[in-house]
Amino acid sequence: MESGLNSSGTQARNHTKGLVIVNTGPGKGKTTAALGLLLRAWGRDMRVVMLQFMKSSTADYGEHRAARRMGVEIVAGGAGFTWQGGSAEKSRPLAADLWSQAKEKIISGAYHMVILDELSYPLRYGWLPVEAVLEVLKTRPSWVHVVITGRDVPQELIDFADVVTNMEAVKHPFRRGIKAQPGIEF
Amino acid sequence: MESGLNSSGTQARNHTKGLVIVNTGPGKGKTTAALGLLLRAWGRDMRVVMLQFMKSSTADYGEHRAARRMGVEIVAGGAGFTWQGGSAEKSRPLAADLWSQAKEKIISGAYHMVILDELSYPLRYGWLPVEAVLEVLKTRPSWVHVVITGRDVPQELIDFADVVTNMEAVKHPFRRGIKAQPGIEF
Repeated sequence: MESGLNSSGTQARNHTKGLVIVNTGPGKGKTTAALGLLLRAWGRDMRVVMLQFMKSSTADYGEHRAARRMGVEIVAGGAGFTWQGGSAEKSRPLAADLWSQAKEKIISGAYHMVILDELSYPLRYGWLPVEAVLEVLKTRPSWVHVVITGRDVPQELIDFADVVTNMEAVKHPFRRGIKAQPGIEF
Repeated sequence: MESGLNSSGTQARNHTKGLVIVNTGPGKGKTTAALGLLLRAWGRDMRVVMLQFMKSSTADYGEHRAARRMGVEIVAGGAGFTWQGGSAEKSRPLAADLWSQAKEKIISGAYHMVILDELSYPLRYGWLPVEAVLEVLKTRPSWVHVVITGRDVPQELIDFADVVTNMEAVKHPFRRGIKAQPGIEF
């Protein structure tokens, strides 16, 4: 995976206030909207990285293929959801490892935007403590945007966030018997 | 703007059922999630185009800069919202022209995905008839995904869509006095 280093160099300052953005809720569009933020940020020569807490490192979805071409880092470091073969035993150490990478990237100030995709699940499953995440958000460099996605984001993070959107499913494809499709869901 | 023509050539078949996807509601993430779909589709070598019904052709936002680099077409063909200098007088003919381009692209079958960004506004303002849009959705080639964004999407389109997500603002940045930022909102 390429470094995603761009014209911004190693320090990602000179931008306005870094936001904490949460995309949550049962509907479609949480990760997808985070990818849209990644695209916009990349278009503006901002340095951006996405860390995926549930998707497995073997995943080669639309976003991974796009990111490789764009020279943007997407680090898939989960073991998958249970129906994809994931388990607490496999997932817990992976989540801890990915979180330590995420923390380092956020604190470094080298990124304008760090996306913690599906972070809510390791928090909900008790693989990571919410307090550790809050502490990093509170002490991060002021210019760093952090985007958090997933269902059931803990209330402490909702309270701390600047922007929170709840994606409500008015019509959800899987409930309607429409299978997941490449280029749409993944 | 480059053509976005890719390995799929002039016919975009050989994919599964084309979906009508609606991102609506008062929250953030409607256009942003559509950009995420664009990114995923592009990553999978699908041919995708976004037509923007409100943004002006002079707009050079994060998504436009990204799309140029990616060789993806984004056609901004509106006159802006009223607070951006738009008016019904200026907007109505632009909407009609952009819709005729959109219709042609959808019907051609040459795209896997056609994104009609902020289409809800010309429909709500009476610049375009909902029936014309419905007719094109109903008669389009079966493999073409159509994505529609904007607040207050007319009920006829909601009824016809396969996937509908309502973005609810739990915390909205503008209401909280946080100004729009490059790489985030645009």
